Amino acid sequence: MNFEMIVAANGRLSGKKRVTPLLNSPFIDEIVGRPTYLKAECLQHSGSFKFRGAFSAISALTSEERDKGILAYSSGNHAQGIAMAATMHNIPSTVIMPEDAPKIKIDNTRKLGAEVVLYDRYNESREIIGESLQKKFGSVLIKPYDDPNVIAGQGTAGLEITKQAKDLGIDEADLLVCCGGGGLTSGIALACAENAKNFKVRPVEPAGFDDVVRSLISGKRETNDSNSSSLCDAIVTPSPGILTFPILKEFCYPGMVVTESEVLKAMRIAFERLKIVIEPGGAVALAAALYHSEMLDSKTIVVVASGGNVDPETFSRALSFR
Amino acid sequence: MNFEMIVAANGRLSGKKRVTPLLNSPFIDEIVGRPTYLKAECLQHSGSFKFRGAFSAISALTSEERDKGILAYSSGNHAQGIAMAATMHNIPSTVIMPEDAPKIKIDNTRKLGAEVVLYDRYNESREIIGESLQKKFGSVLIKPYDDPNVIAGQGTAGLEITKQAKDLGIDEADLLVCCGGGGLTSGIALACAENAKNFKVRPVEPAGFDDVVRSLISGKRETNDSNSSSLCDAIVTPSPGILTFPILKEFCYPGMVVTESEVLKAMRIAFERLKIVIEPGGAVALAAALYHSEMLDSKTIVVVASGGNVDPETFSRALSFR
Repeated sequence: MNFEMIVAANGRLSGKKRVTPLLNSPFIDEIVGRPTYLKAECLQHSGSFKFRGAFSAISALTSEERDKGILAYSSGNHAQGIAMAATMHNIPSTVIMPEDAPKIKIDNTRKLGAEVVLYDRYNESREIIGESLQKKFGSVLIKPYDDPNVIAGQGTAGLEITKQAKDLGIDEADLLVCCGGGGLTSGIALACAENAKNFKVRPVEPAGFDDVVRSLISGKRETNDSNSSSLCDAIVTPSPGILTFPILKEFCYPGMVVTESEVLKAMRIAFERLKIVIEPGGAVALAAALYHSEMLDSKTIVVVASGGNVDPETFSRALSFR
Repeated sequence: MNFEMIVAANGRLSGKKRVTPLLNSPFIDEIVGRPTYLKAECLQHSGSFKFRGAFSAISALTSEERDKGILAYSSGNHAQGIAMAATMHNIPSTVIMPEDAPKIKIDNTRKLGAEVVLYDRYNESREIIGESLQKKFGSVLIKPYDDPNVIAGQGTAGLEITKQAKDLGIDEADLLVCCGGGGLTSGIALACAENAKNFKVRPVEPAGFDDVVRSLISGKRETNDSNSSSLCDAIVTPSPGILTFPILKEFCYPGMVVTESEVLKAMRIAFERLKIVIEPGGAVALAAALYHSEMLDSKTIVVVASGGNVDPETFSRALSFR
């Protein structure tokens, strides 16, 4: 796993991914106390950055591998990214999803062309179901983060951020990234280590699911106690990835943790000030900038809004939250 | 008023305006029955395209004119555009707004640096208040659409659309534009007349406020019967502009009219499929594409989403609308 793989993924994604804008607002700058920019990956195809990694991984396969179809497991955003990227390659995909994933994510994954297999998150293992389906059909399993070409694809968001920041004259920043298994964070950290050495990449997680933040402190892969459902469903993972953690450990600065109330308020601020829809898991980085800016010491803040696949009911809840 | 003025405005706005993305979704393509792209001007500074015209007009003034401050009247989006553009020029601004304008628009205009003067839309004339303030302070009055440099600024959205469409290989399209007084529509029509002759620019209005659509049919400036408040507050104007109408008449194709139900459904679809926040007046063009595509004959549809300054209550209403 290295920077050159990100550059290669960027070439394969050229003309396929959306170069998402870096947005800002004087209202947000005022709250954070300095210029703050948001990378709007909610505007990416399929509604989250996951399209990048999915397309990157599928486009790296041989045509023989592709013809057997794609298999994936996901709480929702990787599912939609895989479904859309597979459809763009004209190949079938099957996605294993928890039966309590947001309905919009399950519906969209189907409509984007994937076959969806639901499982019981509390009593079944998606890894075991995945392996059994893989043996049965011989399909390639594309994991949501522990796959070099997935990490490379997510890293293309980092290439865009460093270029867009450079165009704005930003040469140092705290760069806050919504973090689940660490695919996006490690990809961006690798891109910054090469292209923007004064960017401090920090993973952000919701309270109770701060496995990466704690792992960076202890130096080893920690596990979350809770297996409960979370408002931030997109980024709830049991522990940092096996491939992602060494990268996070080498390149990331200390992480940050936000509460559900802070997430809901951040979603409302993104609605009011930037006119974008962010899902709870995609709002943790913005929440960290808005409500914990005292932990940050760079002149400029960049946050990634990683996705926007949220049910109308949850979004309305954020809009009326006080 | 000519194409060169748009190119000049584009130069003044360079590095100041946001080049907003052209978004799409397979879900929307399916409903419309062909590739459909949305120009997301809700992501423009101040939450609507109005920033372009406001900045264009202010930047075209002499420094003597600027020093006396800017005066404007507006139902809300021009107000915010003027306030933000004036603040960026370090000059004061005063904006006359109806007292029943959406609260978020009044609040934001103040927070963006303008002094706001409220008036009673039913019993007072904003033009008369504007003229009296103008005489008192000697400020320059920047009208919301009947100003050549405002039209030129809005036309820069058309320059971007034609370039972005060309990059996507689109050489013919129906281009639907949310239309109030016609500043945006006439600016885009002028840009297309020069840069994309196979683009059919069509104004879209809400039912009951279809003065431009009727004026294009009759060939003369028609007036709306109703003076009532509308869900689509941003684009409710009594009649086409004096400067804009001749341009609309020369370059536009027949307009379209949508209902409030169609507007609310379009807002929800933009939320679900594009992850953007569109206000009712900014959703009429998307609504026309979604629900009246039988009136369109181009292979590709482009719609402009002109703004996103909507109260949380109205947005939640759209999300729960069936």
